[in-house]
Amino acid sequence: MTRVTKILLDEKDMPRQWYNIAADLPSGLKPPLGPDGKPISPDMLAPVFPMNLIEQEVSTQRWIDIPEEVLEILARWRPTPLHRAYALEKALKTPARIYYKNESVSPAGSHKPNTAVPQAWYNKQFGIKKLTTETGAGQWGSALAFACSLLGLECKVFMVRISFDQKPFRKLMMQTWGGICIPSPSNETAFGRKVLAETPDTPGSLGIAITEAIEAAVTDPTGQTRYSLGSVLNHVMLHQTIIGQEAKKQLKIAGEKLPDVVIACAGGGSNFAGLSFPFMIDKINGAKMDIIPVEPTSCPTLTRAPFVYDHGDTGKMTPLLPMHSLGAGFVAAPIHAGGLRYHGMAPLVSQAVIDGLASPMAIDQLECYKAGLLFARTEGIIPAPETTHAIAATVREAEKARLEGKEKVILFGFSGHGLMDLTGYDKYMSGQLTKHEMSEEEIQKLLKDVIATHPAP
Amino acid sequence: MTRVTKILLDEKDMPRQWYNIAADLPSGLKPPLGPDGKPISPDMLAPVFPMNLIEQEVSTQRWIDIPEEVLEILARWRPTPLHRAYALEKALKTPARIYYKNESVSPAGSHKPNTAVPQAWYNKQFGIKKLTTETGAGQWGSALAFACSLLGLECKVFMVRISFDQKPFRKLMMQTWGGICIPSPSNETAFGRKVLAETPDTPGSLGIAITEAIEAAVTDPTGQTRYSLGSVLNHVMLHQTIIGQEAKKQLKIAGEKLPDVVIACAGGGSNFAGLSFPFMIDKINGAKMDIIPVEPTSCPTLTRAPFVYDHGDTGKMTPLLPMHSLGAGFVAAPIHAGGLRYHGMAPLVSQAVIDGLASPMAIDQLECYKAGLLFARTEGIIPAPETTHAIAATVREAEKARLEGKEKVILFGFSGHGLMDLTGYDKYMSGQLTKHEMSEEEIQKLLKDVIATHPAP
Repeated sequence: MTRVTKILLDEKDMPRQWYNIAADLPSGLKPPLGPDGKPISPDMLAPVFPMNLIEQEVSTQRWIDIPEEVLEILARWRPTPLHRAYALEKALKTPARIYYKNESVSPAGSHKPNTAVPQAWYNKQFGIKKLTTETGAGQWGSALAFACSLLGLECKVFMVRISFDQKPFRKLMMQTWGGICIPSPSNETAFGRKVLAETPDTPGSLGIAITEAIEAAVTDPTGQTRYSLGSVLNHVMLHQTIIGQEAKKQLKIAGEKLPDVVIACAGGGSNFAGLSFPFMIDKINGAKMDIIPVEPTSCPTLTRAPFVYDHGDTGKMTPLLPMHSLGAGFVAAPIHAGGLRYHGMAPLVSQAVIDGLASPMAIDQLECYKAGLLFARTEGIIPAPETTHAIAATVREAEKARLEGKEKVILFGFSGHGLMDLTGYDKYMSGQLTKHEMSEEEIQKLLKDVIATHPAP
Repeated sequence: MTRVTKILLDEKDMPRQWYNIAADLPSGLKPPLGPDGKPISPDMLAPVFPMNLIEQEVSTQRWIDIPEEVLEILARWRPTPLHRAYALEKALKTPARIYYKNESVSPAGSHKPNTAVPQAWYNKQFGIKKLTTETGAGQWGSALAFACSLLGLECKVFMVRISFDQKPFRKLMMQTWGGICIPSPSNETAFGRKVLAETPDTPGSLGIAITEAIEAAVTDPTGQTRYSLGSVLNHVMLHQTIIGQEAKKQLKIAGEKLPDVVIACAGGGSNFAGLSFPFMIDKINGAKMDIIPVEPTSCPTLTRAPFVYDHGDTGKMTPLLPMHSLGAGFVAAPIHAGGLRYHGMAPLVSQAVIDGLASPMAIDQLECYKAGLLFARTEGIIPAPETTHAIAATVREAEKARLEGKEKVILFGFSGHGLMDLTGYDKYMSGQLTKHEMSEEEIQKLLKDVIATHPAP
């Protein structure tokens, strides 16, 4: 063959350490605060997480070793391929060279197992028997059920109700791996019952589901249950950096220097962090690079929301985290990209944006589905609705390169496939989807309220 | 890491030729017959297939070059990984070393694109604009829609009604790739209307859907439509041999000689042929090896049916093919492994069984789902219902190795993932599935009838 379509790495070329950007962020990271407004101590998180993960959460060590057994499980599908998108480039008539890092090849179909496996492993090491969690679109819940299955832990998933109803097969996927999946808000927790009493028709939100999952973990009388979060927290960002480290090696093999543009969708931030942080260190060290987290216009956390101290969940069980937030009570429109409906953004990602290391972009779902369909019909893989946001931004950047006549290198994160999300494509193709942009009036009111009610970091 | 979990190959190590076992079968292959009982000439197939594929169909050349452009498209996901199933071995306490060739990593989720891509490519070369086909479980229809999308052809799929109803997301998958999918029997063909008039409640069958797809192709007044078959025919077996050729190289890299046992599920035969034929040549040349096609007890074509001349479709539009057949009118019980509900078996596979080169096995769906669930919860990938048949046979062989205390090498074909087939797992887990074995009386009556009404080859 005259050209190489994808770059693979051997298992022996897998990264052996995670990269912790907390060691390198120019302005450092603000600490999480407890109910008293003072920085929390690791001990205060102990009812929720095992101590070995809490240590990672607060670590500022630059490189953290990946345990051997974790590597062996990740090696079932990693390193993931880096593809050159020749067919997409041709369709866009762009001089840009487009690469995508394909995380959809994991058994759960997304990047989420990269952190589900180590989280389950560290919990097991700590003697924990059962994990609870929340899930939006279902990518994370599936990934944790998968990881728990391989490591012999029980798993209970609170799934945002709108996604639970839109995607019935997600529940079956978790059950096939032995997990339990229930719609949130549920009657199983005090907080769920409260929300249901107040708003029986709520589509649910990640914020609500997180509260329920934490409550279910900390109230387990055996003390052998902990909570596991699929995004937002520092240790989750950390585990995902295996993506960007691999991509960096693969781009080099493809004969490229650093990319000109790095693009990934951002809900809680872990997919974006995973791909971009290993490149961000080069930007911190002076390289010129556009690093773009992409979010939906219906949930414009990074593009519009203020940087405040806010809770990670609606029920205010988490510490106050320094992050861009639309307010913990915010319920985004029921778009199909359920994984991007989160009110906040990972503190590490928020701080990177504050420090000028990343330039967020918001795109509406119609433009995203259009790009997703183009991708499916040229490159052949059907993208998850979340992933279409990165593709839409890539299409914009490729068009820009065409107009400028520049041979840019664009790298984007193909975070997951859409085989479990075909209802969204169906609705898009039959013209049933609308734009779901927040009106300027609506958003101004919301932002004013968030600023008035939340402390600044 | 102390051990290698999977063996990858570079794109440059992809096979450059397909292997045609017709050149090596000890007893040769009987010719297909026309309505007059005489061997058909290639010209007679011209309304159905393009001449370049007909040439492959009748070729006895041992190696056939794979076109460069086909290789480039296949390289988007090929070579596929060969995994060592450490976790399954541990669960089974077997001394056997189990390997599986993972075809589920293709964008359509199965081995089917291996032939969909070249078939679409050859049709396009021949000036064809549109392909029609049938699909059982939906694996093949999805794969052809995928291939047509990448090559710019139209695609229309007649999907067996029971599967169409059980798996609504398959239709959406095909639509996302721009294909059209309708349930069969349909009102779009004369044959479909006839079947509906006689048996309005029929679950449909592959045999009926094939007739409809052929009729739709040959009656297109533009003359630019052809029919495409996902299994059974010689050129389809040919295209799939890329699987076994890769697996052979990968086993060598893993430090293994030839496997002791090769296992793959068999519906029309292409998945089985693809993995096994490149090993069968070694068996023809004297190597000792158990080669096992696995079928459901509810459709026991290779294990029970006679070797006769029969039509490939229910409407008798195809030539008479020399094959094991339960009769072209046979409608298998509505098991979830829709791809294994075909009444016949590829002539090349049938002849290989006649020649003693393969030893078929039939397994009921409960044993298969049990094995599939074990696989999902140990190895982590959820298998397609068809694939669970190969896993169940692997479990039996691994158990045999344990009882014999033998360090056997077992290779099986992981033909596809089950993410689109979770309803079957749901029914299995909730105890709604039954055994679906044909009674001995029922089968004796059927076989007697087939023998009485079909000419012997």
